[in-house]
Amino acid sequence: MEATKFLLSENDIPKQWYNISADMPNPMQPVLHPGTGQPVGPDDLAPLFPMAIIMQEVSQDRWIDIPEPVRDIYRLWRPTPLHRARRLEEALGTPAKIYYKYEGGSPAGSHKPNTSVAQAYYNSAEGVKRIATETGAGQWGSALSMACSFFGLQCKVYMVKVSYNQKPYRKSMIRAWGAEVVPSPSEDTQAGRSILEGDPNSPGSLGIAISEAMEDAATNDDTKYSLGSVLNHVLLHQTVVGQEAKKQMEMAGDYPDVVIGCVGGGSNFAGLSFPFAMDKIAGKDVTLLAVEPAACPTLTKGQFLYDFGDTAQLAPLVPMYTLGHDFIPPEIHAGGLRYHGMSPLICQLYKDGIMDARSYHQVEVFKSAVDFARCEGIIPAPESAHAVKAAMDEALKAKEEGKEKSILFNLSGHGHFDLAAYEDFMDGNLKDYEYPEKAIQESIKALEGLPVPQ
Amino acid sequence: MEATKFLLSENDIPKQWYNISADMPNPMQPVLHPGTGQPVGPDDLAPLFPMAIIMQEVSQDRWIDIPEPVRDIYRLWRPTPLHRARRLEEALGTPAKIYYKYEGGSPAGSHKPNTSVAQAYYNSAEGVKRIATETGAGQWGSALSMACSFFGLQCKVYMVKVSYNQKPYRKSMIRAWGAEVVPSPSEDTQAGRSILEGDPNSPGSLGIAISEAMEDAATNDDTKYSLGSVLNHVLLHQTVVGQEAKKQMEMAGDYPDVVIGCVGGGSNFAGLSFPFAMDKIAGKDVTLLAVEPAACPTLTKGQFLYDFGDTAQLAPLVPMYTLGHDFIPPEIHAGGLRYHGMSPLICQLYKDGIMDARSYHQVEVFKSAVDFARCEGIIPAPESAHAVKAAMDEALKAKEEGKEKSILFNLSGHGHFDLAAYEDFMDGNLKDYEYPEKAIQESIKALEGLPVPQ
Repeated sequence: MEATKFLLSENDIPKQWYNISADMPNPMQPVLHPGTGQPVGPDDLAPLFPMAIIMQEVSQDRWIDIPEPVRDIYRLWRPTPLHRARRLEEALGTPAKIYYKYEGGSPAGSHKPNTSVAQAYYNSAEGVKRIATETGAGQWGSALSMACSFFGLQCKVYMVKVSYNQKPYRKSMIRAWGAEVVPSPSEDTQAGRSILEGDPNSPGSLGIAISEAMEDAATNDDTKYSLGSVLNHVLLHQTVVGQEAKKQMEMAGDYPDVVIGCVGGGSNFAGLSFPFAMDKIAGKDVTLLAVEPAACPTLTKGQFLYDFGDTAQLAPLVPMYTLGHDFIPPEIHAGGLRYHGMSPLICQLYKDGIMDARSYHQVEVFKSAVDFARCEGIIPAPESAHAVKAAMDEALKAKEEGKEKSILFNLSGHGHFDLAAYEDFMDGNLKDYEYPEKAIQESIKALEGLPVPQ
Repeated sequence: MEATKFLLSENDIPKQWYNISADMPNPMQPVLHPGTGQPVGPDDLAPLFPMAIIMQEVSQDRWIDIPEPVRDIYRLWRPTPLHRARRLEEALGTPAKIYYKYEGGSPAGSHKPNTSVAQAYYNSAEGVKRIATETGAGQWGSALSMACSFFGLQCKVYMVKVSYNQKPYRKSMIRAWGAEVVPSPSEDTQAGRSILEGDPNSPGSLGIAISEAMEDAATNDDTKYSLGSVLNHVLLHQTVVGQEAKKQMEMAGDYPDVVIGCVGGGSNFAGLSFPFAMDKIAGKDVTLLAVEPAACPTLTKGQFLYDFGDTAQLAPLVPMYTLGHDFIPPEIHAGGLRYHGMSPLICQLYKDGIMDARSYHQVEVFKSAVDFARCEGIIPAPESAHAVKAAMDEALKAKEEGKEKSILFNLSGHGHFDLAAYEDFMDGNLKDYEYPEKAIQESIKALEGLPVPQ
């Protein structure tokens, strides 16, 4: 029988992370201090992050060793399987081969523990006692609370209110691992209170929740801040995904023509695609496709500008495609993708033509997710379902063109906490949001006067 | 670093199931026709099951080949990992080694697809178009609906009402895979209507839901019935778990002193333990421990009698430990364990001293589950948490006695759909139920006049 699953051994868990900064055709432009407008240095970041993380954030080394205690915990769910979606291929009648890397088998149900465990480890090693963070759909908050429980750290999670209400089980999961979780905007921070004064019914956003968590870390001596995406060290940690996938594609005797991931802050897409981007930069022909929600179309409709990573303008100015830090995305179910900005590494690579991007509306995304589940079993997270939809479209395009083609996508998480959204979809109650053009124009206009990337 | 995870390759997925009937010191006594009281033959079962399943039910062959299309789907999540719970051992300060086989990585989140896929395959191969089944907590209903989606079968699931209400996401999951699901007792069957007449607020039970599903199959020509536990062929299919675990314990250079699983109908415990029971019957010293809820203590408080498998007395008379088919267990969160009877294979082995049993209350079980999650990451299903509690107690006993000891348990499923129960536990709102002695006495008394096993 033709192979449909490619398994690595425990020894194949990568021993180093891959740092794409060493290989980029054009370097990422500097991150700027929100007050001074000058490039941020390690000292500026010291109140927020442990020094080991800061050094990774600015490192130009191509390979960075993974500490053994981190690899030891990775073994709980790594190496993750690479599957060939043969039943889906048959259902689509496509000549394309569809492969997916499944990261939903981690105890937190997504790729997020690849970095949460590393971050908790480095904080613990430097004597930090408590970590504050934000979470959208809850994948990151649960991943960090789990990691903190392994290292005996306290953890507080500011969870975007719309997701807090849509996904009560994510909140329970975070609590089960011993962390504290509050809906954001909350009354616990100045940033939260000021949003609530303006709009007591604010659904929240990742930008707001980041402001709250950063304020918590900045105002509590024993507390550092942790982010689940966007930043260089986060994407670095996720490259275990793509490194494993490359080996597994070799086992399959294949190499992808297109590599696909959903993007909110960009970490799961970067994790899968950066090791392939290394090949592309060296001349290999491979398409790297980022998929985002049409309701929050950062790469496809945003502008490449300096913008704050958060709503309250506490975070540094980042050179990225942005919809403006004031933009509050519509309440789509893919809460993890409701972010106004994007990883600056991905943005630079997108600007330089190394990466492509595409957007979808949520109803078509859920339809693909259900089709996928009925062929392949796994019910995708709404975020990951954006990648499923793109992979299916690529496979149908190959069918039209009569081309053999190898498609690889990151099934970054399962949808066990998103079944209310599936229920809405199946009952015909799920709706699409129009492209929020006016709100985006306004929030981008508000960026006038900020530095502009070269 | 000492190994904590034992991974098999794809080729290690078993090629045969192990049938313990070939090795039992005393054979299981015959199942009797509910009407005639005579031993049931293949013809009696033909309206309910495809012939391949019936032949497995009565087979005395030690090994039965697994069809390739079933193994092909097993590859979606098999082989499953065996972990050593080293962080838990450290937290308990025990000299014992604790191993767990994790079956929650299947797309349905439990061990149940090991048999649902086989059952759907055999039904499909014999031209069946539709399957009716019951489910307690929803693990079985979701596993069967997934399997039916792979083979293009329709599926209707009668879900015990208390679980239907406690776990709305399980219902959505069943629907996502294309099956129909109704709360049981339902208005859709005579069995359901007659229960509702007597008690419109009946919380339901597995016994009632089985009656409804059997009636559905018996009254619809294109429909067969499927059961997720109890029966011989179901336990047979689950032996892939124990066969893999034996290989993995060899990789660890170890052999368990005690093998633990939770029991409702008995399939996950049998799946892990039967391959070890084979060794025990041949003289090996190993304890096989079934763990059940104190609110539904079939093995520890029931009597070995002939009883009906279901409430409406449609199912055959089975020689088993039972609490009486009229007994409706208290509404504990481990809905999958709320069954009045028990696999007759396990009952015979328990009666013959090959297996042991123990019961726990749910609050202590949830406490162990949270402790486990904070050490090992995975949040157990409430059912599986019974095994976690017993494993932790065995490890603490080893500590008291200063003994090295190897403990193996089946972490048969994750608790992603049970987080409302965890929330109740963490808020101090979870309660224990007193041992329902009077109700059990009454329902056992009602069995007078039925045949009695030898």
